[in-house]
Amino acid sequence: MLSRSHERLIQALQRRKERATRGLFLAEGVRVAEELAHSKIDLKFALASPALEDTPRGRDLLAILRKRTAVHELADPALRRLAATEQPQGVLVVASEPAASLAQIRIETASRVLVCDAVQDPGNLGTLIRSADAFGAAGVILLPGCVDAWNAKVVRAAAGSSFHLPVVSAQLDELVTWLRVHGFQIWGGAAHGEPYDAARTPARVALIVGNEGAGLRPETQALVDQAVRIEMPGRAESLNVGVAASILLYLLSQRNV
Amino acid sequence: MLSRSHERLIQALQRRKERATRGLFLAEGVRVAEELAHSKIDLKFALASPALEDTPRGRDLLAILRKRTAVHELADPALRRLAATEQPQGVLVVASEPAASLAQIRIETASRVLVCDAVQDPGNLGTLIRSADAFGAAGVILLPGCVDAWNAKVVRAAAGSSFHLPVVSAQLDELVTWLRVHGFQIWGGAAHGEPYDAARTPARVALIVGNEGAGLRPETQALVDQAVRIEMPGRAESLNVGVAASILLYLLSQRNV
Repeated sequence: MLSRSHERLIQALQRRKERATRGLFLAEGVRVAEELAHSKIDLKFALASPALEDTPRGRDLLAILRKRTAVHELADPALRRLAATEQPQGVLVVASEPAASLAQIRIETASRVLVCDAVQDPGNLGTLIRSADAFGAAGVILLPGCVDAWNAKVVRAAAGSSFHLPVVSAQLDELVTWLRVHGFQIWGGAAHGEPYDAARTPARVALIVGNEGAGLRPETQALVDQAVRIEMPGRAESLNVGVAASILLYLLSQRNV
Repeated sequence: MLSRSHERLIQALQRRKERATRGLFLAEGVRVAEELAHSKIDLKFALASPALEDTPRGRDLLAILRKRTAVHELADPALRRLAATEQPQGVLVVASEPAASLAQIRIETASRVLVCDAVQDPGNLGTLIRSADAFGAAGVILLPGCVDAWNAKVVRAAAGSSFHLPVVSAQLDELVTWLRVHGFQIWGGAAHGEPYDAARTPARVALIVGNEGAGLRPETQALVDQAVRIEMPGRAESLNVGVAASILLYLLSQRNV
């Protein structure tokens, strides 16, 4: 049984301001819950539908969740009504937002970071975090105007990657200082840019991606040291922002192998 | 003013069965409406909010739409209520679904096609169509179980690419015959596959991508001639389906330059 106070907390955590005040977020879906259960993130409690017991994967997840936190049973329709994503797959976990700051990003000789400027679609931001993780970026930095990284839809689309690398919110001026101190060259994707060239790629690259419709704001565009183009022989004018950034992150990861 | 029959038609077109019966679809948003207005696709009518007149881009769009079809004015809140996407940006067009069959896919000496197997997320399918177009694929083929290519959210995410290349629904057996007749090697993305190698890539490749959660069905997995892996030095287990396919389509397009 779920208490009214748990229910009210979950409803509150659908709102960015409440998440920030409480330092908590919602993680929904089997894959995300598995990754969260295996992470070092502090778990507050979980809700699980009885249907989760029906599969070996579901039973494994329940076992590990129960070792780490209180698991309350809730019928699937009620769980779906409470959830922020469309298909919570019978599991919802309330957990503490990991603290993250620029100082926590571990920079090596060759490092990439991804900077998001006013990326507003939760699916796109989640995909960007997932690709940054897949291609070994040291961190993801969110400038003001981005959707909250701890929005349940972002966490879901990131498929566990939110728990693997620092996802840091920063102001533009502190970011610029940090990037300059650590010798990052700042790249922006642009149709008018130079084609990607592995031989001319520096060891430290910060890739900035902009808003889905409007692109980079003038103040972030002004920071770009190198505009880079992905060659497209077809008719589409541009790529989805998550796809464009993922291709550049992939190419950068290949160069640094 | 909008007649009740127009309104009912738009509501009907939110449903796949009604779109198929009537052979019509909804296109929403400025970019998609622009691409549609510049295509050869038959337009039935358009709705435009007065706010569209406020920008040069909006006025240009209105001018070209008016040359091609009847444009009805509708206030923004009413237009948003009727629309299938969250932000129709003041414009909605009703148009005829282009007829498309495997025979319409123009194959050249070196050709790529993208095959989607049970891709169910509209945003992912739209992104896949957009990337296939960007990287010069000859067509996109949808197997049963995919979301409808003419769903308004798919059309929106495809950003006009739906009007650039054939998007064909096909049964598995007819697809297999067609691919074999034309000498396509069938590729599937897989974590256990071979790393991508441009030197070992044949001239004609059909890339098959599967469902977001479940991957390829056993009957499509059995068709794969070559499992290909995207190297990921980071911690994420896998990529978003749209991202993974886009990276492979990009690499294939580079090889064929």
